[in-house]
Amino acid sequence: MKILLIGANGTIGKAVGAELSQRHEVITAGRNSGDYRVNIQDVQSIRDLYAKTGTIDAVACAAGNVTFAPLESMTPEQFDVGIRDKLMGQVHLVLIGREYVSVRGSFTLISGSLADEPVLFGSSASMVNAAINAFVRAAAIELPNVRINAVSPTVLEESMESYGPFFRGAEAVPARRVALAYSRSIEGANTGQVYNVL
Amino acid sequence: MKILLIGANGTIGKAVGAELSQRHEVITAGRNSGDYRVNIQDVQSIRDLYAKTGTIDAVACAAGNVTFAPLESMTPEQFDVGIRDKLMGQVHLVLIGREYVSVRGSFTLISGSLADEPVLFGSSASMVNAAINAFVRAAAIELPNVRINAVSPTVLEESMESYGPFFRGAEAVPARRVALAYSRSIEGANTGQVYNVL
Repeated sequence: MKILLIGANGTIGKAVGAELSQRHEVITAGRNSGDYRVNIQDVQSIRDLYAKTGTIDAVACAAGNVTFAPLESMTPEQFDVGIRDKLMGQVHLVLIGREYVSVRGSFTLISGSLADEPVLFGSSASMVNAAINAFVRAAAIELPNVRINAVSPTVLEESMESYGPFFRGAEAVPARRVALAYSRSIEGANTGQVYNVL
Repeated sequence: MKILLIGANGTIGKAVGAELSQRHEVITAGRNSGDYRVNIQDVQSIRDLYAKTGTIDAVACAAGNVTFAPLESMTPEQFDVGIRDKLMGQVHLVLIGREYVSVRGSFTLISGSLADEPVLFGSSASMVNAAINAFVRAAAIELPNVRINAVSPTVLEESMESYGPFFRGAEAVPARRVALAYSRSIEGANTGQVYNVL
């Protein structure tokens, strides 16, 4: 398969690339690195990306920013980061990319376990992750020719230094386990699924 | 209790007002009618509303627009309607209103069953409703002095003429049953709950 991996240079992206490149051609994209540059907040940037890749068999997204902050100090602009980037950035990757993905090809988006189990300072992440999971379930029934799933991990072992304080007591998972969920989504046949990695 | 009811002139809002006004003082607000006018997409309009109401014991929101359309024809602007209005409009009602709600007072937001069970043309509603439910669960653990819940109804009996085609086979509920869920949220003691009305 020819797979477009967005956010390829992040902790999850690197693990997904390592897993999938064993068996597939992986085209990497990212904000500051990779075969192609893309800013998923910018619809035109996404259009330009697909114009360069041409037809692909799968889109794996491991990109998406969201702001962690106390709810009482969250500004509309901070909520906008998660909505514009992680949520609508990924939605637009699907809506625009649909024309470029081959029949029975797939989109795999990234959400996160805060959708189901909130933590302090994570209100924006909870909102955005749950929205992504619901979008995936809803989009699956309106996309007859392509598949769409989400991968929803808890905090990563590799990210505990920075995110550990938000996730005290969480059983962190290694990025390579998250990458296996991408593999199940892309190399399997399901659609409308949320792959929890807990 | 002194209760601010937003979207008071809608199908759900009228039923909530009828239920709560039997026992409480209900202040009504809406885009085009009610004791006060408010556009929940506009942060300043929300600030002006609370400045007029002063301290209240509960905020009940039955307002929020979202666009129903085939996913393949949904534009970024159509997705924005649900995000700006039903999702972030209600989030801002909470963030700004927090200073005006009395201790152990409550916010009750409106979401909807498409969060959990998608239908054709409902991708934006699914996304927005799930985001609201997750926000309520997350906000509840960061709002120690006030309570926050969501009411998540399926399609209303009163709306079947317009929404029936989207909800074939759904067991519609009367708005008065949805109003009872608002009563449980406001007159009960729970927080972080999603009251499904199915």
